Amino acid sequence: MAPKNPKDSKTVMTDMVLPGETNPLNNLFGGELLARMDRAASIAARRHSRRITVTASVNHVAFNRNVPLGSVVTIEASLSRAFRTSMEVYIDVWMEDRFTGERSKANEAIYTFVAVDETGKPTEVPEIVPETDLEKERHAGALRRKQLSLVLAGKMKPGEATELKALFTS
Amino acid sequence: MAPKNPKDSKTVMTDMVLPGETNPLNNLFGGELLARMDRAASIAARRHSRRITVTASVNHVAFNRNVPLGSVVTIEASLSRAFRTSMEVYIDVWMEDRFTGERSKANEAIYTFVAVDETGKPTEVPEIVPETDLEKERHAGALRRKQLSLVLAGKMKPGEATELKALFTS
Amino acid sequence: MAPKNPKDSKTVMTDMVLPGETNPLNNLFGGELLARMDRAASIAARRHSRRITVTASVNHVAFNRNVPLGSVVTIEASLSRAFRTSMEVYIDVWMEDRFTGERSKANEAIYTFVAVDETGKPTEVPEIVPETDLEKERHAGALRRKQLSLVLAGKMKPGEATELKALFTS
Amino acid sequence: MAPKNPKDSKTVMTDMVLPGETNPLNNLFGGELLARMDRAASIAARRHSRRITVTASVNHVAFNRNVPLGSVVTIEASLSRAFRTSMEVYIDVWMEDRFTGERSKANEAIYTFVAVDETGKPTEVPEIVPETDLEKERHAGALRRKQLSLVLAGKMKPGEATELKALFTS
Amino acid sequence: MAPKNPKDSKTVMTDMVLPGETNPLNNLFGGELLARMDRAASIAARRHSRRITVTASVNHVAFNRNVPLGSVVTIEASLSRAFRTSMEVYIDVWMEDRFTGERSKANEAIYTFVAVDETGKPTEVPEIVPETDLEKERHAGALRRKQLSLVLAGKMKPGEATELKALFTS
Amino acid sequence: MAPKNPKDSKTVMTDMVLPGETNPLNNLFGGELLARMDRAASIAARRHSRRITVTASVNHVAFNRNVPLGSVVTIEASLSRAFRTSMEVYIDVWMEDRFTGERSKANEAIYTFVAVDETGKPTEVPEIVPETDLEKERHAGALRRKQLSLVLAGKMKPGEATELKALFTS
Repeated sequence: MAPKNPKDSKTVMTDMVLPGETNPLNNLFGGELLARMDRAASIAARRHSRRITVTASVNHVAFNRNVPLGSVVTIEASLSRAFRTSMEVYIDVWMEDRFTGERSKANEAIYTFVAVDETGKPTEVPEIVPETDLEKERHAGALRRKQLSLVLAGKMKPGEATELKALFTS
Repeated sequence: MAPKNPKDSKTVMTDMVLPGETNPLNNLFGGELLARMDRAASIAARRHSRRITVTASVNHVAFNRNVPLGSVVTIEASLSRAFRTSMEVYIDVWMEDRFTGERSKANEAIYTFVAVDETGKPTEVPEIVPETDLEKERHAGALRRKQLSLVLAGKMKPGEATELKALFTS
Repeated sequence: MAPKNPKDSKTVMTDMVLPGETNPLNNLFGGELLARMDRAASIAARRHSRRITVTASVNHVAFNRNVPLGSVVTIEASLSRAFRTSMEVYIDVWMEDRFTGERSKANEAIYTFVAVDETGKPTEVPEIVPETDLEKERHAGALRRKQLSLVLAGKMKPGEATELKALFTS
Repeated sequence: MAPKNPKDSKTVMTDMVLPGETNPLNNLFGGELLARMDRAASIAARRHSRRITVTASVNHVAFNRNVPLGSVVTIEASLSRAFRTSMEVYIDVWMEDRFTGERSKANEAIYTFVAVDETGKPTEVPEIVPETDLEKERHAGALRRKQLSLVLAGKMKPGEATELKALFTS
Repeated sequence: MAPKNPKDSKTVMTDMVLPGETNPLNNLFGGELLARMDRAASIAARRHSRRITVTASVNHVAFNRNVPLGSVVTIEASLSRAFRTSMEVYIDVWMEDRFTGERSKANEAIYTFVAVDETGKPTEVPEIVPETDLEKERHAGALRRKQLSLVLAGKMKPGEATELKALFTS
Repeated sequence: MAPKNPKDSKTVMTDMVLPGETNPLNNLFGGELLARMDRAASIAARRHSRRITVTASVNHVAFNRNVPLGSVVTIEASLSRAFRTSMEVYIDVWMEDRFTGERSKANEAIYTFVAVDETGKPTEVPEIVPETDLEKERHAGALRRKQLSLVLAGKMKPGEATELKALFTS
């Protein structure tokens, strides 16, 4: 399979925040944003792999900004790294000020998907070749996150997670 | 504020998986489950704090089991630990076999919420006193997860995260 | 089939009242509550019978309390009695005061379900053995309600509905 | 207030059965039909009273016919009787065979609504004058149903419910 | 196939405007109204043809009136003309003043549907025989609209669109 | 107000076709696509004007391609021309083949929006300066469409619609 670039599967989902999606402070529910990011990211993973993709995990997500009712929210999902049958997707969420049009970062998240065939069996996916500096940085980080995930799941010994270990012992 | 026990705010949300919530393999979308868990967990946080609660973060979530269309899904959310204005909520997701009625674990997740007043300003919440062994274990783990979260956000130096450091250097 | 107790299939569905579900006074639409109760009760009937269940009838339901937007609503559904292929499910609806956390009864309803096989044909279900006083009282009442239902449908002569007749002539 | 006829507020709601509204047998969920009937009937009550209307109760509803996915469902709601501040609405539900176009009765239900002002206080509504034979029959039945409802709620002694008593003792 | 009259397939869809369907000025979204009109009109086309019907085109639609949150909206869809396998449906949208009950025209639209068999292949439909003056006027206009549509799609030369040409050259 | 280019407000909305949005042939409902296009186009109009925008009209829309359940649909909305207080938005709809990833045109539509202030009063918007050949062609066409719209609404005499007249008499 020929390697691909992150831009080949980049997915943009722009939409409004409607009344049924807000909490008592009239801001977008965290759970609604998690669901929208999942849809956008799974489309990116599907565009990269041309397979059915299922959510494997969600990395730590922090909600630092409120997104008020009526906001325009843009979700951009790009592959940061492809492993054998799984793909890490990096998601940037932007919101726009209605009057100035100024765009600001509302959120960031990282989801992992697995490519499967019609029976649900994992299948191989093309490699990712990062191009820009940001893509290269996220590509490198993906390996550290995979090690952390394996350690937390008890599938890798902390001592073997070389990159992570360096982080805590240097 | 008088401390409370995890059982005081335990929240149970049982519902079915409907056609509009499934992926091309006819299993529940990961994003839909993330949204349901957010609603259940925010109710638990609200019951504990008796305040408006907003999602602050989602810890690493792994989706290990498929949840097919038509399944009965039970989400149980309980407070594992309360900090000054934030609360960690531990979520267990169960599914039932339609014919045998056997209940099996479909998923686990950890969300953090902040209690706020009507203007969105964080306010203090009661302490949590764990009772059962499982509650005590999750209560202890919550501290490690908070340190990891601070380290990843660059708000704590890895060397100061004593509990985490022990994990990687022992 | 071994008899079962009401607690074996008790179903709890806790959720919030969202903006899309309210009437012009900002209270939960009666129709939305009817739909939620139907889902919770059908899960209870399915847990009891381990079959597909279809709604057969809704008993008289009175809406005595308004349930405001943003409320936490808890629906508890339990089998009150099982007949040959049908089940009566008793539903209690609770709401919580956001500030005091006090729980109060918002509603009560009674639905009847029929267990069917994959072709839609009714199939037998296990008996119910009530345990608590409340369960026994509801179990006894279920027979009166079935008679009333048969009389109203013209399938039983009023004079043969012994229990009902006693009510009006004593 | 000038009396009105049932036809003045008759409400017709025709729509399709969509995939998100069906049970595992691919028929319309009972709860969805209850919610649609509530919306149609509340519009009829509002047209009669020109007030905000809230659901007060649902009479016994029997689901005798399955309504398959893709069906066209027509709900017709008409006032059968108006009391001082409440209104009984009679609902007929029809479905159509896709190929022959034949229309058949799928269901019948009776809901009661109360007219309220902007503060939620009950307000008076115009009288109903039935015209057709069916309207007259339903108008008469509404009084019996009101007595039964009062008896079941413990607000009227069975012996005082003259019309009902006749039914069981004749 | 025996010809039919417009009234044989007239479809009435009455419903409320709910919070999730409104724009920042609290009026019904244009897009929501377009979707509701499509459902009502496709039911009318299906009733006329007794076939599966798919939307072929939407004629020019102007939104002249705001429809506020909480309004009762009535959509009436009637066939204006049937061609060999396609049908033009004329849609009138009415809204009611809550207090006076006065009904006023909110909108008008024209959709075209094609009747298809289970494989998606177009199939013939019965003719329409208009009865009232309004029906006759719309029936005649349908031919002009079909010519305009063919001209705009480049499938008919402007000079051959006799009726249209007369409009611009007289 | 400084003029803007079409690319300044271009809006991309990528999403999947879910089961609740499909007709009996399992293709996207025409009405659902009309509603999605309205949301995307109104965001483009809002980005251009930095005002609240309301749908004024929908130009003739033809549905030439079926969009099957599970498809990834990308809606791209760009301003073709701005008049004093109204904006014409040109919408291109693309679908992707799941296996080859090939992108093909599914649809095209033209909507018009008016910019309004908080009271609903129309307000002026910046001019549009087209850059690419396609933008210039659509910018020119917008004037013809406006004339046609005025003629059809009876607000301009056919003889005064110079550009249109040329089309039919040349």
